Parts: sequence; C-alpha cells; structure tokens
Amino acid sequence: MSGENEKAYFTEADSAEVVMGSIDRTGEERLLHIMDVVIRHLHAAVKEIEPTQEEWFQAIQFLTKTGQMSDEWRQEFILLSDVLGVSMLVDAINNRKPGGATETTVLGPFHVENAPVLENGADTCMDGKGEPLVVHGKVRSVEGAPIEGARLDVWQCNDDGFYDVQQKGIQPDFNLRGIFHSQKDGGYWLRAVKPRPYPIPDDGPVGMLLKKLGRHPNRPAHLHYIVGADGYEEITTHIFVPDDIYIDSDAVFGVKESLLADFIKVDDPVRAEKFNVANPFWEVEFDFVLAPKSG
Amino acid sequence: MSGENEKAYFTEADSAEVVMGSIDRTGEERLLHIMDVVIRHLHAAVKEIEPTQEEWFQAIQFLTKTGQMSDEWRQEFILLSDVLGVSMLVDAINNRKPGGATETTVLGPFHVENAPVLENGADTCMDGKGEPLVVHGKVRSVEGAPIEGARLDVWQCNDDGFYDVQQKGIQPDFNLRGIFHSQKDGGYWLRAVKPRPYPIPDDGPVGMLLKKLGRHPNRPAHLHYIVGADGYEEITTHIFVPDDIYIDSDAVFGVKESLLADFIKVDDPVRAEKFNVANPFWEVEFDFVLAPKSG
Repeated sequence: MSGENEKAYFTEADSAEVVMGSIDRTGEERLLHIMDVVIRHLHAAVKEIEPTQEEWFQAIQFLTKTGQMSDEWRQEFILLSDVLGVSMLVDAINNRKPGGATETTVLGPFHVENAPVLENGADTCMDGKGEPLVVHGKVRSVEGAPIEGARLDVWQCNDDGFYDVQQKGIQPDFNLRGIFHSQKDGGYWLRAVKPRPYPIPDDGPVGMLLKKLGRHPNRPAHLHYIVGADGYEEITTHIFVPDDIYIDSDAVFGVKESLLADFIKVDDPVRAEKFNVANPFWEVEFDFVLAPKSG
Repeated sequence: MSGENEKAYFTEADSAEVVMGSIDRTGEERLLHIMDVVIRHLHAAVKEIEPTQEEWFQAIQFLTKTGQMSDEWRQEFILLSDVLGVSMLVDAINNRKPGGATETTVLGPFHVENAPVLENGADTCMDGKGEPLVVHGKVRSVEGAPIEGARLDVWQCNDDGFYDVQQKGIQPDFNLRGIFHSQKDGGYWLRAVKPRPYPIPDDGPVGMLLKKLGRHPNRPAHLHYIVGADGYEEITTHIFVPDDIYIDSDAVFGVKESLLADFIKVDDPVRAEKFNVANPFWEVEFDFVLAPKSG
C-alpha cells in the first residue's frame, strides 16, 4: 500500500481520477485524450443519474442488444448515433467549410460501394415504381467556376420507402443508385423517382427507445449524394423535399435549411419528351458547390 | 418552418438542445431525466474529442463488437462497465450504508443462481485442486448482535483461475460455490481452496482496450459473497488476499481497505484435524456486519 506504485483504492468521490490513474500515461496521446474525456463524462453522468442496479443492468442489456441487432446490412449502433444527434455532430465538426460550399449531412447506413457508373440522363429506377423525377444541376467551385468530371454518387429509397439493400431479392440490386460525372459546363442530370419519407428500421432497441421518448422514426424524403472532384473536398449530403410532413422533425436531425430543394410538378408533354419521362413528372434543380482541398 | 411545432434545425452549437427538444416532455419523468443527462454529456464529450469520421466509426465498431461478444456465459458490456469503474461507482451509489456495516463491491459476471445449499463445514471444492482453505467468521448487526440464519452465498475461481461457468464440462458444475446459513451465534464456516489472481476474459474488445491503455487484465485473489438476512440490507462483496501482487491494481477497481482479510498459513496437525483438512492449510476469519433494512 506504499511505495512508488502506490494507488488509491476506489471511492465514490474520486471514481474518475482512480480509473484515469490506472492508465499508462506513456501510451498513444490521442487515445489517452479520448479516454480521459470519455471517463470524465461517463462518471459525471452516472453521478448525476444515480442509477439503481436495475437501471444499470437495463443500460447493459440495451447496449448489448444494440450490438447484437447489427449485421452486414443493419448497423443499430449507427442508428443510435443518428437518433441521438451524434452522427450529425461528428459531421458538423468534420465539415466546417468555407462559406458558399454546399453543406453536408449524415451518410446514413445505406450507402454501398461500387454502384454502377451511368451516363448523364440515365434512369436509376429499376423497379418501375413511383412518380418520375428529373434531377439536374451544376457542380461548381466556391468562386463559381464549373467543375468538369466531378463524381456524383447518388442513392435513394424506392417508392415503398426501402433501399435496395434492405430488400435483397425483392428490389433489383443497385435500384435507385448510380455514379454520374459532371459535363464540361459542370452540369449533371439523371432520372429517378420522387423520394418519399420512410421510417428508419425501428423493430430493434433504437426503435423501442424512440417509442419511449415519444419520437417518431421517420425521415423526410430526400436523395443522398456524395460529390467530389480532383482538388476539392468531397461532400456527403442530401437534398430534401421541403414540404414533407417530417421536414421539421427528421428522426436523425439531418435537415439543413440550405439543403431544401425545389421539387416542381411539371405537366408539359414537350418538356417530358425532352427528358424522356412520362408526363406529368417532377423536376428538381440543385447545384453543388465544392471547396478547394485544404492542406 | 413556423407555427406551434416549429423546431430548430440541427447546428453544431445547439446540438444537444435540438436533440433534447425532439423528446416528448410528457413522458416518464425518470427516463426524461436520464436521457437529458446522457445527451448533454454525450454531446459535450464529442465536442471535446472532435472525433474524425474514422474515429467515430472505430467507436461504433468497438461498441458493436462488445455487444456481439456477449452470450449466455460472457457479458462483455459488464466487463467494459467494470474496467471503466462504472460498476464500482453504481455499487457505491447504491450502498451508502451506515458506518460499521461491511462495505460492498462488484458482483462480477460469474454469480449463478441456485448454488447448492450446504451445511457449515462443507467443502465447496469439487476438483481437488489448490491449497486447502478454511473460512470462518460471524454475521452480526451493526450493534454487534449475532444474526442467526443469515444466508451466505459464496463463490470463487478454482486453482487454475477459472469459475466453473467458464469451464463447462471441464470443472464440475457448482465447483467452489455454496450457500451457507449462520448458526445461533452468527457463526459460519466452510472449506474451500486459497483463491488465486486471474485475468478477466481479455480475448475480446475490452481486453484489446486494456492492452492499448497499458493496463493488465488481472484481479487480485478474492472470494465472492452475497450475505443477507431477514430485516437487514443484503450486501454483495468480496474478501481479498491482501498480499496479492495485483491488490493495488485490480482491473475492475473492486478492492477496498476494509475488505482485505487475513489469510494465515497454518501448520498444525491438531487444528487441521479439527477442520478436517490436510495439513498445512490456510485459514481466514472474516465477520460480516449487516445494516438494518431501510424503509
């Protein structure tokens, strides 16, 4: 109990300090900082909550089930991070961009690598469901210069409110996904369907938590984008349907004012023929503005 | 964007407030309080850490693996709670006992219900390994009155450092477990083996974390007890071997000064015969003091 390696036994008052004192301070500096912050806030939260043993065990079971609910196509801890606003906070911290660049929002759990590369004007909809939508716009720099060859990775749910990966064998693979490249004038365009609001998967522990908190699990209708180009910071973002009933109560807090797009109902056979879609259809124009790569 | 249900979109500065604002405040008061504390500390921690997207994803993966490592006989989230000092903190908060009562410590993940009820003096060791140990003492009230018929649920690891439930099919079921009852004078006694230090299971995410923090996974040698009697507060505690090499660095912070017991090496054939153990043997005397049930 004495000598160089003397350690204080655990007490309620010094709990965080005792735990931090057990860590070898010669380790990786970044990890030490992270653990110090985690331990300090974790102990402070427990002291404020004063959980009963039963409440502590409920928390253990909740976290365990959240891990066990996760598999190749379902990531319940990402959902938890999303509904607690942590994903958006991490996004905000990592995307403090110069004024003028398109704002970012959450990636979400349904992005897939290696979506098919498509020509401008291609139709991403492979299941024939929903109201036709034409999406077009330009990719440009914060100075307004068109960016040619920018890569736009686009994905969305189908008209039943599910992404292809949630309905393996029901939807065609890569339904409503595609990678497009901007043209000489920075322009891109594609055909899709009007997105619809949908609930995040709510049959697991996260859905149960939302229910207990009187929160609905829905996201307002949106299209996902990852847009990047050589020499520019890549952005992960959405465009939203502004009059969606959930636009002010997104379950994952992804909405930003600047990402509300104009979805216009068009009833014009000539224009429909130009875009090669059935009349009437929806049209949305949205430009992406990229900031130069830093560093 | 206006009207009664107007909600602020997410911003980095107001992140916690926006998330708390999404919760229906008419819900269960206790849950609302818990979520307010969790959200406030979670967002504050993320803002202090400023994780990269990669670090955020490492945290998601760590938590997911921790859930997925858990099964009927392994609870990795309890281990995480243990090594971060949370289990001991919850124990301390729930056991602020009047002076004089035996102090409590962590339950640990290896308690089982329905251990065999044994007569005083019975030998809990069923695998014949280790140095014989005689444990005896009294159960009494804080005023010093003997408590008859107190229930002592005792368990420990075997001489290889494993609990029976960690070695199903290798150790006999209920090896080194038993429920004893105190006699008229409050006395109890049992035969066992000298406990030894052992590592908590460290082949999972928690073990990996300990390694990265330069912490060993070992617990100093101890016997587990749950002691209760009609009209008294039940206590969950250990007694520790005080000269154990890990006594000042318990991986789960369970040691308290008052729980250090005197393990005495006895070389006395007469005394050995009295206790019906081989000579030489170890002897430890430890009294348990219970506080009256509150409320």
